[in-house]
Amino acid sequence: MSIILHDLAGADPDLRFSPYCWRIRFALAHKGLPVETIPWRFTERDALAFSGQGKVPVIQDGGKTVFDSWSIAEHLEAAYPTPTLFGGAAGKAHAAFINAWADSIMVGGIARLIVRDLLDVIDPKDRDYFRSSREARFGQTLEEVQAGREDRVAAFRESLMPVRLVLRRQEWLGGAAPSYADHIVAGTLMWPSCASRFALLTEDDPVAGWFGRMLDLYGGLGRAAKRA
Amino acid sequence: MSIILHDLAGADPDLRFSPYCWRIRFALAHKGLPVETIPWRFTERDALAFSGQGKVPVIQDGGKTVFDSWSIAEHLEAAYPTPTLFGGAAGKAHAAFINAWADSIMVGGIARLIVRDLLDVIDPKDRDYFRSSREARFGQTLEEVQAGREDRVAAFRESLMPVRLVLRRQEWLGGAAPSYADHIVAGTLMWPSCASRFALLTEDDPVAGWFGRMLDLYGGLGRAAKRA
Repeated sequence: MSIILHDLAGADPDLRFSPYCWRIRFALAHKGLPVETIPWRFTERDALAFSGQGKVPVIQDGGKTVFDSWSIAEHLEAAYPTPTLFGGAAGKAHAAFINAWADSIMVGGIARLIVRDLLDVIDPKDRDYFRSSREARFGQTLEEVQAGREDRVAAFRESLMPVRLVLRRQEWLGGAAPSYADHIVAGTLMWPSCASRFALLTEDDPVAGWFGRMLDLYGGLGRAAKRA
Repeated sequence: MSIILHDLAGADPDLRFSPYCWRIRFALAHKGLPVETIPWRFTERDALAFSGQGKVPVIQDGGKTVFDSWSIAEHLEAAYPTPTLFGGAAGKAHAAFINAWADSIMVGGIARLIVRDLLDVIDPKDRDYFRSSREARFGQTLEEVQAGREDRVAAFRESLMPVRLVLRRQEWLGGAAPSYADHIVAGTLMWPSCASRFALLTEDDPVAGWFGRMLDLYGGLGRAAKRA
C-alpha cells in the first residue's frame, strides 16, 4: 500500500512547491517507497484535523500518521532502514544541524526573495490568508519584502557558502552517495524552483551543478516537477 | 609516544587560541590520546618547513606528519577508530558541512569582533606581520574592522541559530554524545574565549550553556585553558 503524503499545492493542483514536502518526496524516492500525494491548500485546516495540527507535510503510513518533515524522515528511517537516509546516529545528529541551517538561513533568505511570487501561484482561496499571515510575520507588505531582490540575491548566494565548500570535497552532502542532507537542501531549493521564475543561483555556481544532479536522481523526480 | 601538536601561541607561551588547533586538542582528548604541544608563532615559518606548508595545526604522529585540522581529524579517526569522532561515512560527510559552516560563518564573524584584541596577545615579533596581512585581507585597519562591535554582536549571535535549534533537540551536536561536530564549534569558540575579553555570547543563550558543558569535558580541558 502506498504511503499517503498531504502535499501543498497551488491553484494548479499539479504545482507542488513546499520546501518541507519536497524533502519528504526525495526521502520517499530514496527509499523506493511508493507514494500517493493529496493536494492541500493553506486554508484547508479541516483536511488535516486527523493529524492534530494544521501544516503539511503529513503522511499516513498504514495506520500511522506522522507530521513535521524531520519527524517523518525519522519515521521512514526507523520503519524502512535501507537504503539509509542518515547513516547512523551521528549521521542523523549532524543532519539535524543541516536541517536547522536550512530552516533558519535558507528558508528565511528565499522567502525574502520570492514571497510575492508565491501569491501568484497559490490557490485563490488561500490568498487573503497568505497575504495577511506573511505580512504580519514580516511587518511589511509582500511587495515591500520582495523589493530590491536583484540587489539582495548576491547576499543570499553568499549564504550558501557552506554548501559550496563541502561540494569541493565530496560529490553529495551525504558524501559518496546522497543522504537526507541532500534532500533537505535540494528540497528547500525546489520551493523557488517550482513557485517562481526568479533566478536564485547563477549557472556557474557549484551549488547549481549539484542541484542539477539532484533533479536527475530518482528517475528525474525533481526535473519532472511542474513549474510556474 | 605522545602525538606532537604544533599549536599557535601568544606572547605568553601558555596562551593558545587558534580555533583550528583547539578542534584538534578536543579531538585528541576525545580519543584519549596523549599530546605534547609545541608553541608556534605566526612568523616562525621555518619551524613548520618539515610539513611542506606554513600553518598550524600540524601534528607529528610517529613518523607521520599531517596538517590542516580536517585532515588531522580524518587521520586520527583512521588511525585510532574508537571512540569515534564521526560515527561513520555519512556522519563524517555531514560533519564536513558543519566544518564548512564554522570556517565561513563563525570564523569570519568572530574575526570582525575581536581581530584588534588579538594584536594585544600575540607575540611582539608577530605584530607587524599580523597587522599587515589582516589589514590587507579586510581592506581596513584592525581598529576599523573591530569598531562598533557592541552593535554588531547581535547579528553574530543570530548567525548561531542553527546551533541553538539543534540543541533544542539533542544535548550535543553529535547527538547523545559529543562528536567532532562539537569539537569544531567549541574549538572555534575557544578562540575568542581565550584571546579576548569581549562577551561574545549572552549567559542565557543555550549555545553558552552547551559551550560550558564542552569546557568541562575531558577533565576540564577547555575550562583550564589560559585566558587573556
